Amino acid sequence: MKVTINISLKEGVLDPEGRAVETALGNLGFTDAANVRIGRQISLDIDAEDASRAQHRAARMCESLLANTVIEDYEIELADEE
Amino acid sequence: MKVTINISLKEGVLDPEGRAVETALGNLGFTDAANVRIGRQISLDIDAEDASRAQHRAARMCESLLANTVIEDYEIELADEE
Repeated sequence: MKVTINISLKEGVLDPEGRAVETALGNLGFTDAANVRIGRQISLDIDAEDASRAQHRAARMCESLLANTVIEDYEIELADEE
Repeated sequence: MKVTINISLKEGVLDPEGRAVETALGNLGFTDAANVRIGRQISLDIDAEDASRAQHRAARMCESLLANTVIEDYEIELADEE
């Protein structure tokens, strides 16, 4: 089952990479961009019988390796396979 | 307008970071994970009058700075503001 995991910094956590990108965009003339935040999007296949099991495994993977839950939030999306 | 940009490696481009994560997941017992690919998710606010203008600006930002279009694809999502 195709799973997409979006990992983003929690609100309030400083994002120096996002800040740098915002400055670079400004220097290129994109002064209409603000609040740039950069996260990760991980896509993977999980071998699971059903969606709830895939969701559960993905959450376990986030908690143990993929996300730093002290400063990051994660969001799991399952692709429909119909 | 809130915009989310998902940047992923094009099909066929090797993803050593994804490969490393897949191996690490396997070592932790998550042998049900496969085809791990890692991309970036950039969220930002764009000061634009309407959705089509925001979409256009976001695409310009991707082409000039955010994505490496030789090896990466980007996808722009506009948040509904209703």
